[in-house]
Amino acid sequence: MQHALNTQPELYLARYRAVRRQTEKLCAPLTPEDTVMQPMVDVSPPKWHLGHTTWFFEMFILQPHVSGYKHFHPQYAFLFNSYYNSMGSRIARSDRGTLSRPPLQDIYAYRQHVDQYMEKVLADTLLQEKPELAAVLELGLQHEQQHQELLVTDIKYILSCNPLLPAYLPSPATAVLGLFSEKQPQNRWLPVPEGLYTVGHRGQGFCFDNELQAHQVFIPAFEAQAAPVTNGEYLRFMQDGGYADFRHWLEEGWQLVQAQQWQAPLYWLQQEDQWFQFTLHGLQPLDLAAPVTHVCFYEALAYANWSGHRLLTEFEWEALSQKYPNPLATGNFVESERYQPVPAVFPAEQPYAAQLLGNTWEWTYSSYLPYPHFETAPGAIGEYNGKFMINQMVLRGGSCATPQNHIRPTYRNFFHADKRWQFTGIRLAKR
Amino acid sequence: MQHALNTQPELYLARYRAVRRQTEKLCAPLTPEDTVMQPMVDVSPPKWHLGHTTWFFEMFILQPHVSGYKHFHPQYAFLFNSYYNSMGSRIARSDRGTLSRPPLQDIYAYRQHVDQYMEKVLADTLLQEKPELAAVLELGLQHEQQHQELLVTDIKYILSCNPLLPAYLPSPATAVLGLFSEKQPQNRWLPVPEGLYTVGHRGQGFCFDNELQAHQVFIPAFEAQAAPVTNGEYLRFMQDGGYADFRHWLEEGWQLVQAQQWQAPLYWLQQEDQWFQFTLHGLQPLDLAAPVTHVCFYEALAYANWSGHRLLTEFEWEALSQKYPNPLATGNFVESERYQPVPAVFPAEQPYAAQLLGNTWEWTYSSYLPYPHFETAPGAIGEYNGKFMINQMVLRGGSCATPQNHIRPTYRNFFHADKRWQFTGIRLAKR
Amino acid sequence: MQHALNTQPELYLARYRAVRRQTEKLCAPLTPEDTVMQPMVDVSPPKWHLGHTTWFFEMFILQPHVSGYKHFHPQYAFLFNSYYNSMGSRIARSDRGTLSRPPLQDIYAYRQHVDQYMEKVLADTLLQEKPELAAVLELGLQHEQQHQELLVTDIKYILSCNPLLPAYLPSPATAVLGLFSEKQPQNRWLPVPEGLYTVGHRGQGFCFDNELQAHQVFIPAFEAQAAPVTNGEYLRFMQDGGYADFRHWLEEGWQLVQAQQWQAPLYWLQQEDQWFQFTLHGLQPLDLAAPVTHVCFYEALAYANWSGHRLLTEFEWEALSQKYPNPLATGNFVESERYQPVPAVFPAEQPYAAQLLGNTWEWTYSSYLPYPHFETAPGAIGEYNGKFMINQMVLRGGSCATPQNHIRPTYRNFFHADKRWQFTGIRLAKR
Amino acid sequence: MQHALNTQPELYLARYRAVRRQTEKLCAPLTPEDTVMQPMVDVSPPKWHLGHTTWFFEMFILQPHVSGYKHFHPQYAFLFNSYYNSMGSRIARSDRGTLSRPPLQDIYAYRQHVDQYMEKVLADTLLQEKPELAAVLELGLQHEQQHQELLVTDIKYILSCNPLLPAYLPSPATAVLGLFSEKQPQNRWLPVPEGLYTVGHRGQGFCFDNELQAHQVFIPAFEAQAAPVTNGEYLRFMQDGGYADFRHWLEEGWQLVQAQQWQAPLYWLQQEDQWFQFTLHGLQPLDLAAPVTHVCFYEALAYANWSGHRLLTEFEWEALSQKYPNPLATGNFVESERYQPVPAVFPAEQPYAAQLLGNTWEWTYSSYLPYPHFETAPGAIGEYNGKFMINQMVLRGGSCATPQNHIRPTYRNFFHADKRWQFTGIRLAKR
Repeated sequence: MQHALNTQPELYLARYRAVRRQTEKLCAPLTPEDTVMQPMVDVSPPKWHLGHTTWFFEMFILQPHVSGYKHFHPQYAFLFNSYYNSMGSRIARSDRGTLSRPPLQDIYAYRQHVDQYMEKVLADTLLQEKPELAAVLELGLQHEQQHQELLVTDIKYILSCNPLLPAYLPSPATAVLGLFSEKQPQNRWLPVPEGLYTVGHRGQGFCFDNELQAHQVFIPAFEAQAAPVTNGEYLRFMQDGGYADFRHWLEEGWQLVQAQQWQAPLYWLQQEDQWFQFTLHGLQPLDLAAPVTHVCFYEALAYANWSGHRLLTEFEWEALSQKYPNPLATGNFVESERYQPVPAVFPAEQPYAAQLLGNTWEWTYSSYLPYPHFETAPGAIGEYNGKFMINQMVLRGGSCATPQNHIRPTYRNFFHADKRWQFTGIRLAKR
Repeated sequence: MQHALNTQPELYLARYRAVRRQTEKLCAPLTPEDTVMQPMVDVSPPKWHLGHTTWFFEMFILQPHVSGYKHFHPQYAFLFNSYYNSMGSRIARSDRGTLSRPPLQDIYAYRQHVDQYMEKVLADTLLQEKPELAAVLELGLQHEQQHQELLVTDIKYILSCNPLLPAYLPSPATAVLGLFSEKQPQNRWLPVPEGLYTVGHRGQGFCFDNELQAHQVFIPAFEAQAAPVTNGEYLRFMQDGGYADFRHWLEEGWQLVQAQQWQAPLYWLQQEDQWFQFTLHGLQPLDLAAPVTHVCFYEALAYANWSGHRLLTEFEWEALSQKYPNPLATGNFVESERYQPVPAVFPAEQPYAAQLLGNTWEWTYSSYLPYPHFETAPGAIGEYNGKFMINQMVLRGGSCATPQNHIRPTYRNFFHADKRWQFTGIRLAKR
Repeated sequence: MQHALNTQPELYLARYRAVRRQTEKLCAPLTPEDTVMQPMVDVSPPKWHLGHTTWFFEMFILQPHVSGYKHFHPQYAFLFNSYYNSMGSRIARSDRGTLSRPPLQDIYAYRQHVDQYMEKVLADTLLQEKPELAAVLELGLQHEQQHQELLVTDIKYILSCNPLLPAYLPSPATAVLGLFSEKQPQNRWLPVPEGLYTVGHRGQGFCFDNELQAHQVFIPAFEAQAAPVTNGEYLRFMQDGGYADFRHWLEEGWQLVQAQQWQAPLYWLQQEDQWFQFTLHGLQPLDLAAPVTHVCFYEALAYANWSGHRLLTEFEWEALSQKYPNPLATGNFVESERYQPVPAVFPAEQPYAAQLLGNTWEWTYSSYLPYPHFETAPGAIGEYNGKFMINQMVLRGGSCATPQNHIRPTYRNFFHADKRWQFTGIRLAKR
Repeated sequence: MQHALNTQPELYLARYRAVRRQTEKLCAPLTPEDTVMQPMVDVSPPKWHLGHTTWFFEMFILQPHVSGYKHFHPQYAFLFNSYYNSMGSRIARSDRGTLSRPPLQDIYAYRQHVDQYMEKVLADTLLQEKPELAAVLELGLQHEQQHQELLVTDIKYILSCNPLLPAYLPSPATAVLGLFSEKQPQNRWLPVPEGLYTVGHRGQGFCFDNELQAHQVFIPAFEAQAAPVTNGEYLRFMQDGGYADFRHWLEEGWQLVQAQQWQAPLYWLQQEDQWFQFTLHGLQPLDLAAPVTHVCFYEALAYANWSGHRLLTEFEWEALSQKYPNPLATGNFVESERYQPVPAVFPAEQPYAAQLLGNTWEWTYSSYLPYPHFETAPGAIGEYNGKFMINQMVLRGGSCATPQNHIRPTYRNFFHADKRWQFTGIRLAKR
C-alpha cells in the first residue's frame, strides 16, 4: 500500500476519531438483536464489523508496536480475525452469526479500550519516527471505511430478510431522497480516442496495493454513456422478457437465473402491478429515473447484450474518467444519508461530465487480476488483496454507501459475478 | 387429548400465571442477542419460543372464542406459527434465526397483551360453559411446558456454540450441583415377569393423544437396571474403543460416527487428559457418578451392545414403572435449577425403586408409532402429534429440564435417532 | 439363520444350479452397457450383482473351508463386498457405477470359476460333516434370490432413466400380462378376532435371523381387505387432490411430496389424459384393476388416511395370513415373467382367501425392529440383518419379482419410508 | 469463426474422413461398458462424444441444407445436443452417464448414416456454391478434434476411477515413452522486450471466434522460461511443504486444497516412497524430467509464487511465441500416441526455441474474456464460445492429447481454475 508522507499528527488524530465515530453512528439505529444477524455467509453481523475494525488496530499497531499494551480479552483475536492466516486460527466465516456473546456493550468497551491506546499513539511522535507505521494506520482507517460500506449493505440485507421489512431510518421527505423524478435524465455518448493510457495509481495519496504499479495500456477508441442505466431502462429489459431469453446471458448466469427464478434485481417487489424497492428507509416506490442497482454482473451483462451495447473494461472506465473528470463534491455518497442512488444530473456548465463517482458501483467486464509488477507485501498485510485475485469482477466508482474521502478513479472494488447485495449497477459502452 | 373435568377456574388462573411466569424466568438470564440465535435448524431462538407459546393461546382460544379480540400485530400469526398447516403460511423453520425484529420488548408486550385477555377469560365462566375450551387451555399450558424444556436445551446449545463458552447461570457450589460424588451408585437388576400389561394413559388427568388408547400388550419376562448408565460407565465404553468398533453400531449410526468424527457425547471436552462437560453453569469437570446424557439413540444402542445387554422397549419401560413406581417428589426436574442429571440415590427404605422420572430421558428401542385406536383430532390440534409418527424413537421418563407436574410414566417423548441436544440417556435391560 | 437339517446333497446341487442359472437368465436381455449403470445410489449395476452373489460363496464357503482354493482375482474381494465391515475394505456403495472393468465376460468367468469349486463341494460329503456349512450354503442361495429380486427392480429403474424408455423384454400379448381387465375385482373385509398370536418363524425350514424368535403378541380385533388397493382406487385418490392436501400426510412425507413435486406413483406417466406405466415390457396403458405398486410408505399411508382406513401392523398381517392362508401356487411371482402385478382373483371355491403372497409387497405401519430374543450371529454373518434395524418400515408378502420358493408369511422385508423403486403396494385395515 | 476460402473439395473429403476415423480409432481399445461412464460431471461418456460429434454435422449441415435428409433416430437430437439452447431441449449434462442405450453399435451405425450423407455433400458442388457452409463444415471438423482431446482426457479419468487401474493401451517400451530421462533438461530465461504487440488471429486459416479481432496490446518487458516446469521441480515444491503453506495460494485455492486434502497433482500415487503416475499406459514411475501436468490453476500459481516467479499472461505467451517460434513438427501431439508429456529437448541448432506447442497446456494468469470487437455469431453457432466468458482461465499451447493440425499460437483454451483432468502445466515468467 502507499500513503501520503509527512502528514501532521494532529490531522491523523482528527481523522481517526472521525472514522471511528462514523462506524458507531451507522450502528446506532440497530437493536442489539440486529447486530448479530448473518442471514447469508457473505454478510457479517454488525457487531462483528464493530469488533473486527478494532481488532485491526490492535493487532497491527498496538500489539506489535506499543510496549505494555494489554489485550482487552484473550479470545478476541480468535473472534475478530477475518481471513488473515498469518494471524492465527479464527472463527469460521459462516459461524460469525453464532456470536450472541460478547454482548454489544462489551464490543463498545473494546472499541473504547483500543481507542484510548490509539489516541495516545497518535498524540505521540511514534508515527513521525516510523513512517511505515503511519502507512499501517492509514490502512487501518481505509479498512474501517470499507467496512462502513459493508455495514450499510449488510444491514440492508439483514433487514430485508425480516418478514416485517423494517426501516433502518424513518422515511425522509421525497425531496430529500430525490425520488419520483418527473423525467428521465438525458443520457448521451461520450467518445474516448484510441491510445496508450496510463492506468493505476500515481502521486502521493493513499492507494491499495492492487492499484499498483501504474502502467500503460493500449485502448482502442470507444464511446461510453455519460450516466448509468436507470431503473426505467432496466424495467424495459424486464418487460421485453430479458430474464426469460437465454440469448442475452452467459451460461453460468443463465443457470443461476433459472435456479433462483430471478425476475428482477434484488430488493425489487411487485405489488399489484406497481414496482417497489426495499430501501434503508423501508419499502419505497421505484424511482424510474434513478440508476438501477443491486444487479449482479450476469444481469449487467445480459442488459448490455439486450441493449445492443456492452460493458466497459476497467481500463476503459479509467480512461473515461481521465477524459471526463467527475467533480467529487457532486457525488451521492454515504454522507448524504440517502443510502440509495439518485437520478443523474447534467448541469449546463458541465456538458461532458460522466456521472462516475458515487451513486452505484459499476460492473466492468474485467476480471480482478494483478497489475504488472504487482507485489504482495510481506506478512499479514500481504493477505489484504492479492489472494483474492481469481473469479471476481472489477467494479469502479463507489456508491451511495461509500465514504466520499475513500474513493478515487483508480480504486478497484471486486465481487463475484453472482453477488447482488452491494450497490452495483451498469454503464454502457459501444464501438 | 384428554383433560381433567370440573377443574375450578381459580386454579386455572393460578396455573396459567405460574406457567407463563416460568417461561419468562427461564429467559431472564439471556442477552437480547441470545434470544435470536438459531445455530442449527433443530434449535429455535428463545424469542421465538416466547412468541410461539403466546400465539398458541391467541390462535386457539382468543381468536376463535373471544369476540372483539384485537390482534397485537397482523403479522405475528405468520411469524409464530410452528408447523400447523391448518393455520396458514408461516416463516420457514430454518429462518427463525433471521428474526432480529420484532425486538425483545415487543414480544414481552405481546405476552402481556395476550395474558390480559386470557386472564379475563379465566376469570369468566366461559370455561365452565365450554369444557372443550378447558381442554384447549390445558393443552396450551402443557404445550408451553414442553417449550420450557426446549428453551433449556436450546439455550444450552446456543451458548455451547460460542467460543467463549459462556455460562447461563453462575456456577453453584458443588454440593448444590451434586457433582463429584465420591463413589458410583450401586446399580442392580430388577425383574419384571411375563404377562399381559395395560399400557397407555388411563384415568382423569391430562394426557396427549399419543398416549391413547390404553391397550394390552404381551411382554416376555425381562430384567432392567434400577438406574441409568453413568458417565463413568460410558467412559469405559469409550476407553475400550467403543467409537471405533463397527460391531457395536447400527449401520446408519456407524456412518454418522465416522462422518461426524464423534468420540464422546455432545458437550464433552477433553483438556489434558481430564474430561469436562459444558453445562448451563459453564464448563464443569465430568461427574463420573451422574447419569450419562446428551447421547443419541445410536450411541445408546452401541453402548448397550458393547455391554452385552440391550435397551428396553417403551412398553417394557412402562411395565417397569408399574412394578417399581417412582416417587415423583424425589426426581431431579427443572425446578431444581441444576439443569444437569445427578447421581441416582438408593435409600434403604426404597430398595426396589427404579430411578425412572427426571434426570435424563431414556431412549427405548421402540419407534414412535400410533397406538391401536389412535385418533387424530379434527383441525389444527390434529397436527399436534400424529403427523410425526415416522422415523423417530420413543423416550420415556423426563429429565432435569422437564417441569415436574408435566411428566408421567405414560408420557411419550420422541426424537430422531441422531439427535443429541436433549437430555437423553441410557437404561439397560436383559433377558 | 435357521435351515432344514439332513437335506440330501444331490438336492443341494440341483438347487444351487437352478438359483445360479436364474440370475444369469435375468441378465441375458441386457447390453454390456446396461450392466454397469447406477442411476441412483440405491441401485446396483447388474454386473455388480453378478459378482457380489458369487463373492458370497467364495468368501463364506470356499475361502474358509476349501483348502487350496485359488482366488479368481486378488481385487474382487474389494470390488464385490457389499456392506460387511468384517470382510475388510470395499468400494463405496455410491461408486459401484464406476466399474466399467472388469468386463462382463470376466464376471461370467468368475462365476464359472466359483461354480466349479462349489459343485465339487456339493458333490462331496463336506456338507454332511459340517451342518453349519450347509446353513451358510442355504444362506448364500437365499441371498442370491434376494439379489434376483433387486436385479429385476434395479434393471427396471435403470431402463426407466433412459429417455428412450427401452423395454427389457418385448411386450407380450395382453392376455399374458393380464392387463386391461374388464372390471374391478370384488374386494371385501375379512375379520380377525382379538387374541394372543404367535408370530415369527417356527418349524424346520429356512428363515432369516430377523424372523426369530417366534413369540406371542396380543392383537386387538380388526378387519383387513382381502386384496390390495388397485390402480383404479389409487387414481381416485389422485383425482381427489390427494397429493395436494397436507391432511393425509405424515409431515416428512408432505415435505417430500412438495420437494419432489410427486403427483403419482413412480413410473406413472400421463400422455394426453391417458395414464401409462413404464414396465419391463415398455410403456403400457395403466391397468385399473391391478394392484397399485411403486408407492412409498408415505403414499401408502396418505392413501389409507384419505380412504378413512389404515394400514396393518406387521403382526396383524401375519395373523391375517394365519387365518386366511394363501395358496402359494396361485401367486404371481418372478417365474411368471410378467414382472408386473395382476388383478386379484377371487375364485368361488376360495371365498375367504386373502391375496397375500406375490404381486406386490405390502407396506405395514411397523418399524423394522428386533424381535424379543433376537440374536446377532457372530462374525460377518451377523451383519446380514441386525445392523439395519432403524428407520425402516416392514413389508410383507413378496411381489411379482420374488422367487416363489423364497417367500413365506413370516418373511420381513424392509425399506426406508421414501423408497419407491421396489414393487410396493397397499392393503387396508379397519377396526 | 473464420476459415480458409477456395479450398478444394477433394481435400475436404479426405480431411473429413481422416478426422472421423481418428475419433473411432481413439475409442477402439474401449469395452462397451467403458463408453458409458461419467464418473464426474465434467467427463462425458465416450459413446456420447461419438454421438455428439456426429449430431453436429447432422444438425448444422444435413438438416438445414440437404433436402430430403432423413434423421437416423427421432430422439438423437435430444440425446446428443450438448449445450445449444437454440437447438431445443436436451438431456442434462449430469445425466449423460445414464445412456446405456442406444447400444454402442447403434452409435456407430449413426456415424455411418451421417457419414454417407456427408460424403455426398462433400463430393457435390454445394460447398463451392455456399462458402458459409464450408465454414460450418470446417467448424464441425475442428469441433470433432476438440472432442478427440476430451476423449483422451475423459478416458484417462474414467480408467483412473477404477480400482483395477486398467491401462488404455499396453505399456510401450521406455524409449517410446521417453520416460526415465537421465538428466533434467537445461532450462533458460528468454527475454521479450516491451512494446505494442498484435495478438489474436490474422491471416487466412481457420480460427475460433474467440481469437478475433486481432488487436494491439502494450506489454512491458519480461522474461519467460524456455521450457515448462518439470515433475522434478514440482516435487521439490511438494517436499518443501508447498501444499501446507497458505502463503503460496490464492484463498479459493487454499480452501480447495484443504477440503480435498490435495497433496500432489492428479494421478500421482506414492507407493513406498516411490512416486508413480497413472497414465493411459497404466501406472508408470514418475519421469522427473518430463513437464508436470494435471495441475490446476491454483497449483500452477502456488508453484510460481513458491518459486519466486510468476505465470505469464495470455498476451505475454503470444508475444513469446512470436519472438521464439516453435517448430510445430517437433511437438508431442496426440499422433505420437504417447498420451503423456515428454522432456523438453534443446537441440544445439535451435538455441532460442521455447517448447510452446504440444506436451502440456500452460495456464496463464489471464481470464477468458472477449477481445475488443468480439462478436457473437447469430443463431446456435453463437453459443459456441462467447457464453462461457466468465470465471475461466486461458490456457495456451496444446498438449500431447491435441491433434497437431488443430493447434496454433493464437488458440485460446479455457477451463475453471480448479480443473485438473486436462493435460495442464506451468511455465514461469519474471520481470
